[in-house]
Amino acid sequence: MNIKAPRGTVDVLPKDAKKWQFVENKIKGICDKYHYEEIRTPVFEHTEVFSRGVGDSTDIVQKEMYTFEDRGGRSLTLRPEGTAAVTRAFVQNKLYGEANQPVKLYYFMQMFRYERPQAGRMRQLNQFGVEVLGSADPAVDAEVIDLAMTVYRSLGLTSLKLVINSLGDVESRKRHRDALIKHFTPYKEELCEDCQSRLEQNPMRILDCKVDRDHPSMKTAPSILDYLNEDSVEYFEKVKKYLELMGIEYEVDPNLVRGLDYYNHTAFEIMSEAEGFGAITTLAGGGRYNGLVEQLGGPATPGIGFGMGIERLLMALEAENVEIPLEEALDCFIVSMGEEPKSEVVRITHELRQYGIQVDQDYQGRKIKAQFKAADRYKAKYVLVLGEEELEKNVINVKEMATGEQVEIPLDQLTLTMKEKLLGGK
Amino acid sequence: MNIKAPRGTVDVLPKDAKKWQFVENKIKGICDKYHYEEIRTPVFEHTEVFSRGVGDSTDIVQKEMYTFEDRGGRSLTLRPEGTAAVTRAFVQNKLYGEANQPVKLYYFMQMFRYERPQAGRMRQLNQFGVEVLGSADPAVDAEVIDLAMTVYRSLGLTSLKLVINSLGDVESRKRHRDALIKHFTPYKEELCEDCQSRLEQNPMRILDCKVDRDHPSMKTAPSILDYLNEDSVEYFEKVKKYLELMGIEYEVDPNLVRGLDYYNHTAFEIMSEAEGFGAITTLAGGGRYNGLVEQLGGPATPGIGFGMGIERLLMALEAENVEIPLEEALDCFIVSMGEEPKSEVVRITHELRQYGIQVDQDYQGRKIKAQFKAADRYKAKYVLVLGEEELEKNVINVKEMATGEQVEIPLDQLTLTMKEKLLGGK
Repeated sequence: MNIKAPRGTVDVLPKDAKKWQFVENKIKGICDKYHYEEIRTPVFEHTEVFSRGVGDSTDIVQKEMYTFEDRGGRSLTLRPEGTAAVTRAFVQNKLYGEANQPVKLYYFMQMFRYERPQAGRMRQLNQFGVEVLGSADPAVDAEVIDLAMTVYRSLGLTSLKLVINSLGDVESRKRHRDALIKHFTPYKEELCEDCQSRLEQNPMRILDCKVDRDHPSMKTAPSILDYLNEDSVEYFEKVKKYLELMGIEYEVDPNLVRGLDYYNHTAFEIMSEAEGFGAITTLAGGGRYNGLVEQLGGPATPGIGFGMGIERLLMALEAENVEIPLEEALDCFIVSMGEEPKSEVVRITHELRQYGIQVDQDYQGRKIKAQFKAADRYKAKYVLVLGEEELEKNVINVKEMATGEQVEIPLDQLTLTMKEKLLGGK
Repeated sequence: MNIKAPRGTVDVLPKDAKKWQFVENKIKGICDKYHYEEIRTPVFEHTEVFSRGVGDSTDIVQKEMYTFEDRGGRSLTLRPEGTAAVTRAFVQNKLYGEANQPVKLYYFMQMFRYERPQAGRMRQLNQFGVEVLGSADPAVDAEVIDLAMTVYRSLGLTSLKLVINSLGDVESRKRHRDALIKHFTPYKEELCEDCQSRLEQNPMRILDCKVDRDHPSMKTAPSILDYLNEDSVEYFEKVKKYLELMGIEYEVDPNLVRGLDYYNHTAFEIMSEAEGFGAITTLAGGGRYNGLVEQLGGPATPGIGFGMGIERLLMALEAENVEIPLEEALDCFIVSMGEEPKSEVVRITHELRQYGIQVDQDYQGRKIKAQFKAADRYKAKYVLVLGEEELEKNVINVKEMATGEQVEIPLDQLTLTMKEKLLGGK
């Protein structure tokens, strides 16, 4: 009887794990250049963090959370997204009191959403994301977008589309909200059930509805861009100017509202335009969330961030046929015969590894020929052979596979010799 | 109103995250030398994986699991340990069919145990671990122990104790089990409630009991080492010989039985002997688990592995006053004044970062003096200054903080100049 991984989750096996590592290391290097530092939060939070931080009316909170009670009866939720969790940590650990502001954070986290699994939409998904807390400078908005684009480009993606919008400040959103309610109320009965309740709670999200997207009232709906006050317009203009100065192309889409309640001012999404990428083209999304820190119990603090799916990033790399360079060769494989040589191989293997050399040996009790085959499968650069005869002479046979060259080396000089061959004497 | 992280969980803040990264990278490097590859499994599994894989009678399964039903009514459990999860993945993905055997895997995973939190015992903990599946060679047992010891030593720990034992094969364990039942039955009423039920289910675990550890019957209990059959003795002798050949000191403790049901042959623990390390001194533990793959639905396959707590590793480093080398200096901080220079700084910042230079700038609208102070706090190696005057002349002022040396550099040569200064023209 066979037990499978839960629906909507997958194992990352060694071959793929190497790709994940490559991508993660690349991203961490970029974060370092942009002067962002890592934060890690627990896999689960008190449910309140998300119901208050993400918004009670969102799909995530209403339909998609893994919520359970622990043995002490507390309601816990597996993290469905990063911003509310990181903001909770920012407040709890009083990072707003640090001398260095803004606080520029990045994370790699698993997220959990109870959705119907499909390509690019898993129940456990992995996100890289950043959050910048403590600055209301539009240059930060541009920096955050720049960082996301730089990640994609430096990995080799080219078919990308950046879409931005401004949701304005509180005043602008309020005026737009009133206009939306006025506009959609006459059509209320024609809209889907979700949109009917959105009309009361958060009418902006009607613009985002996949069900009602072709309803005639959508085309004539009031655009947020017509309701931005002077400050909000100026803010958005600066963000756009900075993007242009950095040579980052974008489109403005006034219907881009994002699924979460907490956004204001800049909102953005990055899509893949690669052929055959699939139905869900969004690679990353984010925006500004001034006010969220207060909502989670901290002092008034502006914030902005984004989340980027690692699974979708890997899918996009595949769709664009980008090859990830992977080191697959093994430094040394040691072939041996007999009980005594085997013991000596155990010692040698240990010693070579202590000096930074990658080594493996046979653990299957294979015959000589099969050991050589194993060395081939591992793409060993050097095959070392130790039989009874060599051991008696205190030597070991070293064969360089690329050239076929073979030398006998005294056992007590093996480490030094292999270091020189493989690490240039380092 | 303030929401805290759930009890028994902590945030890893940027300063500590750098230490975690250092430790993880070091460990990954060692795994690579030992020719182990990474695997990642989901945070939760079907509960059955652990009730069958870890054992129904264990404390973990009976008392400590985070088990919940998902929205589809399936019983899921947050991973309490790595071996059962990795073995499930090994079976499901048919890794036993790969040409390269044994399959040598490592993982970094969060584990979840509902225990009373104390120093070194959290509800969400982080483990590094390895699992080698597909070989019954005692040299693998030695390799796995060697890998764990090498991790600790290469990080700088010296006060370590390695304790090993053999739990024997199925036949040996059976004979020992019978002897234990015979031995403890007369004292049954005097033993704790847990031990009374262990007497039926898994009498070996009585030897491990913290409550009954001073009961007189403990001292005279039959030792597994007296019940090992010839094969098991020979196996254990080889493991010990290999450890000696690698220069790894150990103690044999016949009472070391480990808390999980699935172990046989080699069991081991590594303890910290650092002064003031705390009550829980175990840093890592593991052992052989031939038979577990079958129990989880796969073909008969031997296996061995260990789990190592990262939190405890960091505590041990602290107890031994091992300093982790952390790069704290920032390459460049750019100081600017005025609207036009600010825009140019946005462009320059982007450009320098594209060439691998770490840069930050002011996002707080600070005055000049405060910007210089921020640069100091970040330990900037170079402070670049761009005012209206410099911009007019198309130059930027570059100050090397270590020497106080200042030069004016044409803006269009800045990237090249900084690359040479910081990366040696790379």
